[in-house]
Amino acid sequence: MTYCVGLMLEAGIVLLSDTRTNAGVDNISTYRKMFVFEDPGERVIAIMTAGSLSVTQTAMARLRDAAALPDGPSIMTADTMLGVAEMIGTTLGEVAADVSRKMGAQGQNAQASLIVAGQRKGGEMRMFLIYPEGNFIEATSDTPYLQIGEHKYGKPILDRVVTSRTSLADAQKAVLLSMDSTLRSNLSVGMPLDLAVIEAGSQRVGLQRRIEADDEAFHAMSTAWSAALRDAFAEIAL
Amino acid sequence: MTYCVGLMLEAGIVLLSDTRTNAGVDNISTYRKMFVFEDPGERVIAIMTAGSLSVTQTAMARLRDAAALPDGPSIMTADTMLGVAEMIGTTLGEVAADVSRKMGAQGQNAQASLIVAGQRKGGEMRMFLIYPEGNFIEATSDTPYLQIGEHKYGKPILDRVVTSRTSLADAQKAVLLSMDSTLRSNLSVGMPLDLAVIEAGSQRVGLQRRIEADDEAFHAMSTAWSAALRDAFAEIAL
Repeated sequence: MTYCVGLMLEAGIVLLSDTRTNAGVDNISTYRKMFVFEDPGERVIAIMTAGSLSVTQTAMARLRDAAALPDGPSIMTADTMLGVAEMIGTTLGEVAADVSRKMGAQGQNAQASLIVAGQRKGGEMRMFLIYPEGNFIEATSDTPYLQIGEHKYGKPILDRVVTSRTSLADAQKAVLLSMDSTLRSNLSVGMPLDLAVIEAGSQRVGLQRRIEADDEAFHAMSTAWSAALRDAFAEIAL
Repeated sequence: MTYCVGLMLEAGIVLLSDTRTNAGVDNISTYRKMFVFEDPGERVIAIMTAGSLSVTQTAMARLRDAAALPDGPSIMTADTMLGVAEMIGTTLGEVAADVSRKMGAQGQNAQASLIVAGQRKGGEMRMFLIYPEGNFIEATSDTPYLQIGEHKYGKPILDRVVTSRTSLADAQKAVLLSMDSTLRSNLSVGMPLDLAVIEAGSQRVGLQRRIEADDEAFHAMSTAWSAALRDAFAEIAL
């Protein structure tokens, strides 16, 4: 399983992903699920992945290979963020179909979903959730966040504190507390975490941080939040 | 969908269920999902239901009919709460198999799960989660709560504030706030709610209350909790 969450706010984009992958509960590993494509000041695209690792790794490799070629179509040359989402969706759908065809003999199939967020110079910030088949939806000011993977445990906090006017600092708190609730309840979501912040109009990743399992600031925030929740609970009248 | 939660504490048992049933999203109804069998001072058994309404209604009717007969085995005459759980599990499994056989022609099947809690005079309080096949697990002091239906949204608050030593008043707050988080995030869980409290050693339902959609106390608690969460969020340092 996985938990990735992205907020698209007036002030910018905040992304957080875990790193746990598992095949059953007895085979867990750490893999990065956040990938950044950046031409600083010109274009920034961040992708977070959930689902079959063989699908997401192959899809990311194909996107990276295309972007590395000096010319030819790639997500670094697409005219718009919509074009970027379409290109990524098509790649994802093709890879999933390839892998599922190979696995079909065992009666299994493989799929993945992605969050794609970014901005090109002269364009708006956009954030998309790309479904396994390659189609997608987009975050709006009414619903300024998207989640993939184990989204339920961490949703109540987002619903209560996030609007499109939330500051980038509060947005980082919100995604970290949303992740904290998820980590407590679902073993298949695990540390370390990858956090990224893209300020609106900057076309670059302003902050990118890996939060390790022993990160003191994250641990302090988690403890303070538990204490604050218990205090708040004690003060509520029945 | 459904959300039912039961806490088994040193002080007693607290149960809360919603009342929404749906066949698709365009056909919703209100049905009670909490049923009490009571011989006050001697024996009390409360059952909460989730899953196929045709299965739970038939299973409850069979249990009620058996209990209404002057003699013969029933959950009101079983020697122990374990015997009660076994009897209910067997009935549930048989009804689910019957209904699934009828639905098999359409390639569908029907199932349900239950929470059963209670106490007989001279015995301990017990609380069981009965699976669709009729087998069951039991709440313990390590894990003093059980949930059926849409359990994820409401789990973080329980994990943070409930232990087996929680008071009955705090337990009522905890289940109501757990339900509140679920109501906000899942349309297929809906008001009104049914709340019941059974004090340890009383063998009777001490409090049973239906909470309607316009209940002012519940609305005030929900609003206060949202405000308290936002205040707590504002005070957490990044």
